[in-house]
Amino acid sequence: MGTLNTEFDTSVKRIAVVGGGSWATALIKIFSEGDQVKLNWWLRNKKDINHIRRYHSNPRYLGAVKIEPEKVTPYEDLREAIKNADTVMLAVPAAFIIEALGDLTAEDFKGKKIISTIKGMIPKQNILVTQYMEDVFGIPHDAIAVIGGPCHAEEVAMEKQSYLTVASSCNEYAESLADAMKCRFIKTATVDDLYGVEYCAVMKNIIAVACGVAHGLNYGDNFQAVLVSNALQEIKCFLKRAYNIERDLASSAYLGDLLVTTYSQFSRNRTFGNMIGRGYSVKAAQLEMEMIAEGYYASKSIYEINKDLGAEMPITTAVFHIIYERISPYVEFNILKNKLT
Amino acid sequence: MGTLNTEFDTSVKRIAVVGGGSWATALIKIFSEGDQVKLNWWLRNKKDINHIRRYHSNPRYLGAVKIEPEKVTPYEDLREAIKNADTVMLAVPAAFIIEALGDLTAEDFKGKKIISTIKGMIPKQNILVTQYMEDVFGIPHDAIAVIGGPCHAEEVAMEKQSYLTVASSCNEYAESLADAMKCRFIKTATVDDLYGVEYCAVMKNIIAVACGVAHGLNYGDNFQAVLVSNALQEIKCFLKRAYNIERDLASSAYLGDLLVTTYSQFSRNRTFGNMIGRGYSVKAAQLEMEMIAEGYYASKSIYEINKDLGAEMPITTAVFHIIYERISPYVEFNILKNKLT
Repeated sequence: MGTLNTEFDTSVKRIAVVGGGSWATALIKIFSEGDQVKLNWWLRNKKDINHIRRYHSNPRYLGAVKIEPEKVTPYEDLREAIKNADTVMLAVPAAFIIEALGDLTAEDFKGKKIISTIKGMIPKQNILVTQYMEDVFGIPHDAIAVIGGPCHAEEVAMEKQSYLTVASSCNEYAESLADAMKCRFIKTATVDDLYGVEYCAVMKNIIAVACGVAHGLNYGDNFQAVLVSNALQEIKCFLKRAYNIERDLASSAYLGDLLVTTYSQFSRNRTFGNMIGRGYSVKAAQLEMEMIAEGYYASKSIYEINKDLGAEMPITTAVFHIIYERISPYVEFNILKNKLT
Repeated sequence: MGTLNTEFDTSVKRIAVVGGGSWATALIKIFSEGDQVKLNWWLRNKKDINHIRRYHSNPRYLGAVKIEPEKVTPYEDLREAIKNADTVMLAVPAAFIIEALGDLTAEDFKGKKIISTIKGMIPKQNILVTQYMEDVFGIPHDAIAVIGGPCHAEEVAMEKQSYLTVASSCNEYAESLADAMKCRFIKTATVDDLYGVEYCAVMKNIIAVACGVAHGLNYGDNFQAVLVSNALQEIKCFLKRAYNIERDLASSAYLGDLLVTTYSQFSRNRTFGNMIGRGYSVKAAQLEMEMIAEGYYASKSIYEINKDLGAEMPITTAVFHIIYERISPYVEFNILKNKLT
């Protein structure tokens, strides 16, 4: 598994964090629990940076999390934040990653490792965030890791026992990161399935939209259980064609991540789907929510990638049809329910 | 799959139903939707029988379900109910099956097929209900089917779309039953994994107790997702040793059934576990609930069977220790959380 003799330093000592959302804040808390890692935190908003410097908490998300000044340094300039870091952690929505990294070049990333915590794909290009980092900034495949696993950021803030999985083709790098993250309330595991864990994290958002639509259409818990079971089979079928390596889909990084999202009442994707199921138009649902659910983009990306792969994906197809082809959720789910077993 | 030339008539025309609970009532509704099957319904309580004869509904469970008198005949005498039926459907709690069938002999079951809908094991003997029927009444293995799948009886009463799986080593019999059950709101599938589906239905109740304990101890959704993912691996490991045939555990009959039970807020097993987690003694929790959760018995049976099988079963072991060896849930879950990944 992974590379034994890596050509880069796999140790993680200083991480530049790109993004100021709740998941970024939770990860900063996790890395700050140990003494191994310092963090350079880049946020877009200067007011937020000033707030963090002064009050040691993120004014927008997880306000109860104390940002320790001796471990975390806020940065206004992303290039500066990255300069003296050995690792760059991406934690902005996939739709904004190109914009966020806009000024940077391969030179800025030279010799640096990447962590992606993003659970979405690059829109239009239909590629994974890690593939984008390889293509555009020339990051070596082995120097990239993905953090997966079932994890509401809010529960991390409350220090509830959680489990994270670090995926990288380089086992040493994965172990090094897993070691830096484990703490009193976080357990970590490693796998070599970089793209698999990343794809699964993307696809679960589509399934959460489907669960929301089902709920909006008054389907019950019996149906949801069947929907999620079929979803795991759909994910298995897709991954076998997209990136065929051995994996156990019953692991936390796959099934666990799927469960925490599809059974959460607070998931944005589920809420979005629920509104669609109740009869809102896609645009109205987005306006009402004041944000865009990741599953909205993901269903298009995965649907389009699968045109070549040809996996059986009835749930993704149904979500795509409802969102992008304006087929009535009622009609689409009448078709879908006959395809599930 | 299954037997091609069966030596018995696989058609299902008249079913004797043993038991008057909510699942029995829901199944009677399902079979009454078609025109294929008549039902002889045996209930223990004479008052209930009189109520059904007069008002065409079960006074105790799912009162909204109309019991159609032209299709369903209530019986006071079980032997009589079975006499002119071709199939006997068992739908009492596992703990009461021996008592319910007490007076009957192999002669009464001669030439009859069996359906078990019981999601528990014969206590003390630690055998599946279907194994008990084979051993004690000499029912041929092929003439036995199990009905599995994620299914709250309440949702069947509300005609919410649900999916059931018929498991039998005889494919023709399974198909015949699946055909008799499918209707406007029920879809059916068949598998040949009789014992596997039955074991899974039993084990999910243990996992639901564990989820309840976790909730009672203030673990969160992240932990529950990991617990359920690990449970699927535990079930896989046990089944491989107990009854090793090919099966897809991501199917509705396994994962779906696990999900609907572990994520239900109304599950007796979860409620029981929750009280234990909050500090009730086992006896106090049982008194308070006025009933005994199936997972209470199941954890002992599966734990004891596994002494010989030696599968890795940390969750079942934890539940067994808490219930039967009075180990503190807090201590036991501190051990368990280190075994999960």
